[in-house]
Amino acid sequence: MTTDPRPLELILAKRAGGEHTAAELRAFLTGYLAGAVPDYQVAAWLMAVCWRGMTPRETADLTLAMAHSGDVLDLSDLPHTLDKHSTGGVGDKTTLVLAPLLAVMGGTVAKMSGRGLGHTGGTVDKLESIPGFRAALSDDEFMATAREVGVVVTGQSKDLAPADGLLYALRDATGTVESLPLIASSVMSKKLAGGARSIVLDVKVGSGAFMKTVSDARALAEAMVSIGRLNGRNVRAVLSSMAQPLGHMVGNALEVTEAIACLRGEGPADLLELCLVLAEEVLTAAGLPADRGALIDAVDSGRAMARFEAWIEAQGGDVASLAHLERAPGQALVRAPRGGVVARVDALAVGRAAGALGGGRSRKGDTVDAGVGVELHAKVGTPVAAGEAVATLWHRGGRGLEAAAALVAGAFEVAENAAPQPLVLARAVGADR
Amino acid sequence: MTTDPRPLELILAKRAGGEHTAAELRAFLTGYLAGAVPDYQVAAWLMAVCWRGMTPRETADLTLAMAHSGDVLDLSDLPHTLDKHSTGGVGDKTTLVLAPLLAVMGGTVAKMSGRGLGHTGGTVDKLESIPGFRAALSDDEFMATAREVGVVVTGQSKDLAPADGLLYALRDATGTVESLPLIASSVMSKKLAGGARSIVLDVKVGSGAFMKTVSDARALAEAMVSIGRLNGRNVRAVLSSMAQPLGHMVGNALEVTEAIACLRGEGPADLLELCLVLAEEVLTAAGLPADRGALIDAVDSGRAMARFEAWIEAQGGDVASLAHLERAPGQALVRAPRGGVVARVDALAVGRAAGALGGGRSRKGDTVDAGVGVELHAKVGTPVAAGEAVATLWHRGGRGLEAAAALVAGAFEVAENAAPQPLVLARAVGADR
Repeated sequence: MTTDPRPLELILAKRAGGEHTAAELRAFLTGYLAGAVPDYQVAAWLMAVCWRGMTPRETADLTLAMAHSGDVLDLSDLPHTLDKHSTGGVGDKTTLVLAPLLAVMGGTVAKMSGRGLGHTGGTVDKLESIPGFRAALSDDEFMATAREVGVVVTGQSKDLAPADGLLYALRDATGTVESLPLIASSVMSKKLAGGARSIVLDVKVGSGAFMKTVSDARALAEAMVSIGRLNGRNVRAVLSSMAQPLGHMVGNALEVTEAIACLRGEGPADLLELCLVLAEEVLTAAGLPADRGALIDAVDSGRAMARFEAWIEAQGGDVASLAHLERAPGQALVRAPRGGVVARVDALAVGRAAGALGGGRSRKGDTVDAGVGVELHAKVGTPVAAGEAVATLWHRGGRGLEAAAALVAGAFEVAENAAPQPLVLARAVGADR
Repeated sequence: MTTDPRPLELILAKRAGGEHTAAELRAFLTGYLAGAVPDYQVAAWLMAVCWRGMTPRETADLTLAMAHSGDVLDLSDLPHTLDKHSTGGVGDKTTLVLAPLLAVMGGTVAKMSGRGLGHTGGTVDKLESIPGFRAALSDDEFMATAREVGVVVTGQSKDLAPADGLLYALRDATGTVESLPLIASSVMSKKLAGGARSIVLDVKVGSGAFMKTVSDARALAEAMVSIGRLNGRNVRAVLSSMAQPLGHMVGNALEVTEAIACLRGEGPADLLELCLVLAEEVLTAAGLPADRGALIDAVDSGRAMARFEAWIEAQGGDVASLAHLERAPGQALVRAPRGGVVARVDALAVGRAAGALGGGRSRKGDTVDAGVGVELHAKVGTPVAAGEAVATLWHRGGRGLEAAAALVAGAFEVAENAAPQPLVLARAVGADR
C-alpha cells in the first residue's frame, strides 16, 4: 500500500517493544504531517505505543518533535517566563488570579490559551465576558503587553503543535486516547511550543477530571515533568482534587467575578489556597522568591488586583465594568432535599449543568453565553436545612434549564456526616528526580 | 474523523482484551469492504489483535466472515470433496500426485489454486508447463470435470475471500502480519470459500517455510484445524520439514516430471512418503478407507497415473507431451567444494535460485519460465566427493544464472556427518480435540 520502508520498520520496532531514536520520531511525524506516512500506519503505531509504552527519553523526543511541528513562541527576551497548565477542571479560574500574582512577584506570564470544550471552561472564554477585552493581539502587541504589564493571555492565534491536533483526532477515532506517553506528550507539546521557561502543572483528580485516581494522576504528572525536564524546562507538578468544583462559581462572567474577589482577598478559601500553592511551585521552579507571606502581601496590599486591572486594560477590557459584569436575568434555586451535611458536589455534573445553560461548547466554534452559570451556596462539609437553597442557576430560560436543574440537584448529596476533602493531594511531584 | 461509533467500540473492546461476537466481526468486515470503516480503524484493530489475540471461537467467526466476503464454491453435489493446503514450500509438487491418488480412492479434488509468489511455486504454474493445459474453465466445465474425473484444478477465477486480500495488504503495511489468528484466518478463509468438506493442512517448518520452529508450526496448525472444525469441516494437519526442498526437482516443468515419476512408483522416497501421509490424513478425516496398502496399490497398479492423464486430458493438456516436457537448453553444474556428506540443502536459497533463473514471480502478473529450474543430485545424508556435481541448473543464460549458481552453491553444506532429517514431524495435529 505504501512504499517507504521506514514507517513500517518503526511500527515493527515498537510492536517488538523497542525504543525509537529522536531522529526516527521526527521523520515519522514529519512524514505524517506531509501526507507521506498514511493514517493507517500511524494508527497501527499508536496502538503499538498503547501496548508497549514509551521510555521517558522517547516520550520527551516525541513531544519535542510535536512541539516543532508548527510555530514555537520565542519568549527568550522576557524575564522569568512562567506558565501554568491545568488538565481541566470545573470552576477553575486560577489563571485569572495566578497570572497577575506571579507578575507582581517578578515573573512574566505570556500565554496562548485554548477555549473551553466539553464540561470545562477556557480562560479566554472567561476573559471575553469582560466588555472590550481583545483575545486576538498582534505579535507586537503580545510582546509589548508581556513586557509592560507582565501578563498577557490571548487565544491560540499561532499554529502551536499542529501535529498534536492531527494525532489527537486519529487517536480519538482509533481507540488510542488512553496512553500515558501519548496524553503527556499531547499536553507538553503545546507547553513547549508556548515558550515559557518554567511551568507548573495542575493535574486534577476526581469526577470532574480526566484522571480518576491519584495514582493515575501522579503517573501522568511525573511523565509530564520528565518531558519538560528532558527538554530543558523547569517543571513542577501539583495534584489537586476535582471531586467538587473549585470555589463557588461555575460560568464565565461568574468566574471572573469570583477571581476578582479572590484578588481582593475576599474569595473562597479553596481557590486562594490552590493559587498560592501553584504560585509557590512555579516561582520555586523558576528560582524566584516564593515566600507565602510575600504572596499574601501581594494580595492584601492591592498590588495583585492593580496588576489584574492593568492587564485587562492593556488588552482593551473595560475595567469600570468589572464590578458589574453582565449576568443572565433568570435565577432558579436548587434546594437541599433533606437536612444534614453536604457530602458530595459532583464536579462533572455541575460542569455539564453550566454547559446546558449555554455556558459551554459541545463542539468547536459554538458560541458561549458569558452570563449564565451555577453559583454554589454549599460545598462539601456545609450544614444545610431541608429545603435550603444549595445553588442558584443563572439562566435565560429555554430547554437547558430543566436539564441543568436536574444535573445540579443530582450533583448534591446530603448526609449525616461528610468526609473532609483535601484540595491539594500532592505537591512538588517529580521535583526530586 | 469517522462517525459510526461501532468500529471504535470494537477497537476499544479488543484493546481491553475482550472477545467479539460473530455479528460484530461480520459488521466490521462488511463495513471495511464497503469503504465505511476506514483503513486507519482497521489498522488499529489489527495491532490490538496482535496484542490481545483472539479466542478460537472468535477466530473461526472472523474466518467465516472473510470466507463470505466474496464467492463461495458450492461443491455439495460432488462426492467426498477433499482438499489439501500447504503453507508453502520449495519443490512441493504434492498436489499433482495427491489429487489423482485421492480420486482413485473415491474422493473428489475440485480446487481453485493460486499462482506462485516469491520463492515458492504455484500448482497452476506447474500445470501450465504442460502444452494445451487450460487453467481457466467455465463453471460448468469445472463441475463436469470434477464429476467425471474426480480431479480438477483451476486458477482463481472466482473472487474467493476478497477480504483476505485487502486485509493482507493492510497487514503488510502496518506490521501486523505476524499474528497467529490473523495468519490462520487468512489461510482458512480461502479454504472455507473453496468448498471442500474435508481438508488436510500441510504446515511446513524450516528455512524455506513461514514457520521456522515446530512449536510455532504446531500452534498455527492447531488454530487452523480449530477454525475448520468450528465451521463444520473435517480437518487434520501434518507438520512437515522444509529444511531442504521436497524431492529433487525445483522448477515448473521439472516438478511435473518428478510428480509423474512418483505416480509411476519411480519418484523420490520423501515425496512419495509425504503424499501417502497426506492422503491417509485427508481420507481418514473424510471417513474414507485410508489403508496404506491400498494407496500403494493405487500407484503400483497404474491407476493413479491413469487418473492423472485423464485429468490432464480433461483440461486440454497434451498427454503425449508428458514424457518430454520442454526444458531450458542450458545446463550448469554446481559442484561439492569438498568431500564428505551433505549436511544441509537450504530450501529458501534453492527456491530463490529457481526464481532467479526465471521460474518464479517477484510480483503478481510476472510471467514465469516453465523450463528453468534446479535439479538436486544430492540431499541431506548423501555422500559426495570433492568436485562432484550436486546440482544442475537448467537455464537460458542471462543475468540470473550467476546469482542462481551462487545461491545453490551456498545452499549446500558438506560435512563429516549429517544429522538425519525427519520429513514428517507430526501427524493428526488437532485430531483429538
